[in-house]
Amino acid sequence: MEGGAGRGLECQKTMDGKASNGNGSEKAIPSCCLKARASAPEAEAKCHSTVVSGWFSESQSRSEKASKKVYFNNPMWPGEAHSLKVEKILYKGKSEFQEILVFESSTYGKVLVLDGIIQLSEKDECAYQEMIAHLPLCSIPSPKTVLVVGGGDGGVLREVSRHPSVEHIDICEIDKMVVDVSKKFFPQLSVGFQDPRVHLHIGDATEFLRHAPKGKYDAVIVDSSDPVGPAQELVEKPFFETIARALRPGGVLCNMAESMWLHTHLIQDMISVCRETFKGSVNYAWASVPTYPSGVIGFLLCSTEGPPVDFKNPVNSIEKLEGALKHKRELRFYNSEMHSAAFALPPFLRREVSALCHSSTSTLPR
Amino acid sequence: MEGGAGRGLECQKTMDGKASNGNGSEKAIPSCCLKARASAPEAEAKCHSTVVSGWFSESQSRSEKASKKVYFNNPMWPGEAHSLKVEKILYKGKSEFQEILVFESSTYGKVLVLDGIIQLSEKDECAYQEMIAHLPLCSIPSPKTVLVVGGGDGGVLREVSRHPSVEHIDICEIDKMVVDVSKKFFPQLSVGFQDPRVHLHIGDATEFLRHAPKGKYDAVIVDSSDPVGPAQELVEKPFFETIARALRPGGVLCNMAESMWLHTHLIQDMISVCRETFKGSVNYAWASVPTYPSGVIGFLLCSTEGPPVDFKNPVNSIEKLEGALKHKRELRFYNSEMHSAAFALPPFLRREVSALCHSSTSTLPR
Repeated sequence: MEGGAGRGLECQKTMDGKASNGNGSEKAIPSCCLKARASAPEAEAKCHSTVVSGWFSESQSRSEKASKKVYFNNPMWPGEAHSLKVEKILYKGKSEFQEILVFESSTYGKVLVLDGIIQLSEKDECAYQEMIAHLPLCSIPSPKTVLVVGGGDGGVLREVSRHPSVEHIDICEIDKMVVDVSKKFFPQLSVGFQDPRVHLHIGDATEFLRHAPKGKYDAVIVDSSDPVGPAQELVEKPFFETIARALRPGGVLCNMAESMWLHTHLIQDMISVCRETFKGSVNYAWASVPTYPSGVIGFLLCSTEGPPVDFKNPVNSIEKLEGALKHKRELRFYNSEMHSAAFALPPFLRREVSALCHSSTSTLPR
Repeated sequence: MEGGAGRGLECQKTMDGKASNGNGSEKAIPSCCLKARASAPEAEAKCHSTVVSGWFSESQSRSEKASKKVYFNNPMWPGEAHSLKVEKILYKGKSEFQEILVFESSTYGKVLVLDGIIQLSEKDECAYQEMIAHLPLCSIPSPKTVLVVGGGDGGVLREVSRHPSVEHIDICEIDKMVVDVSKKFFPQLSVGFQDPRVHLHIGDATEFLRHAPKGKYDAVIVDSSDPVGPAQELVEKPFFETIARALRPGGVLCNMAESMWLHTHLIQDMISVCRETFKGSVNYAWASVPTYPSGVIGFLLCSTEGPPVDFKNPVNSIEKLEGALKHKRELRFYNSEMHSAAFALPPFLRREVSALCHSSTSTLPR
């Protein structure tokens, strides 16, 4: 009964791109995953720009009375687009690594955009930042030493610092301008940098990790932009290996892991690589984030060999940590119920990502 | 610490609309909820149409080589828009009640649009149809008699018919043209009508319910379009009262209940009304549906006084029902884990919808 009507569910199988998989061999990738693998924006994105003329769409005034409406268009994935109404452009700049844009939207608060892709909006950043930080940190007892890769806006730091057990937080962000822009326009995120436990390193994360002492960290959180441009190598095996090396036995990684509706190939690839690298457990979770493609974002949660980690049942419940619920500001999206619920996966994802079904070394739920 | 940066989270408080709340009094509603309450499309929607010139946006050819790109724009809520690339228009028509559009999208399969609002796409309809059907039916033992309100595409029928205990399914759809269009273009949904247990009634659901025998149904599923136009009265108290009357003691209602990110006022209103009407339990659940506003849709689950219903812990697990997993086609989105996870709610929703926090007659999770 799986007729033509259901074909929308699968990723397009057309192979129209090539990418290195990190071990020197070339591999064709389907168009639906191009965004996440190509080093240049995919050609398909240009069709959106014809709708919205670059980053913005401006309506044609039909009468003198009509006010000028400006939309930001997010050319995030082939075949669709999400547009936000722009009240005011607050900042446009170009760093050594990427184009940076900040605008005030009419209904999502301020929005940070890197290379044309929405990184966060004030309305829904809570979902992403709280989940990417607390999914790993609530899964292990008393995390003390944490590394954040990327995350230059400071939002993840804000969340990590809720944990009173944490003594030392390293953050390695490649682009200093992201930090500066966040400090100017996103005080509710950059407040994370004010914590005295935070140590900011501007530079390349793979280099940083290569020089990190073996077994230094209890948790590593990879809050990268999409693996296009500066974040390209952050989904490849050598990178995961350096992370595993920097983690203590039974230490945990939480890595941004795309949309279950759009990027099942990429999820499959990432899980396969992590299965080889992390000998403890490998899990997939997701959360609702309206301004991200298809309205969801996934997280890959891995642990190294050592004390077992049951990601689905957090041992370090945030509700029991003194002061954590209201540190800096109240939790908005995360609680222990949301934590466990995030690991519930629809059958279509399990079927398309075979690595989710055949698991010997993981605690993946069936 | 709740400074200006967090204001995007709240609904706009500007009162720029009025609506009857069903008991004769007029009540101001905030602009963010206008879509869901006004009887005419809100003025704000028009600003999207300037971006996309009505239902469609067409790119300007920049060279003779450039192929014509057409996007469908979903003017679903103020301040943002979601666009799907159109491969081919399959049908455009106007029934007695609404405008009907079917197009082939480039990445979401075929799409059904009523009065400019996306009702379903082949790619993600599984999430909505499976959740709205199985959340109620798996929460009670052996459902036998079911009423579907709306749902003229047949998708909910397809899901209800997975339950071998069900003996009789009434469906009351106001617009016969929706049924006809679905039979022509969406065979994987309209297959639901082929089940011999299904009895189709074309007409007004409030009228139908008024004449239904008291206590006839084990479950009522309201799969309405947004409460604009023909579905206006389906969010008001008299309607819920006729449903409660038609349900047996301990019978269940599942009602489409908007987005937790966008329509907290409306959710608050619906829960308050249902609290007064349903003396068993009142719960809120949600699911990821990329083509719906903000990528999520909520469900209101209520039970009448009688045998208690614990919606979060389904007693009638679909995995144990003979043949249910593959009836007509495999389940794609729903399983028992997804069922329980759907009731996990973020703290911001609990804070904004006070009815979710102060619950004496319900089994709402804390």
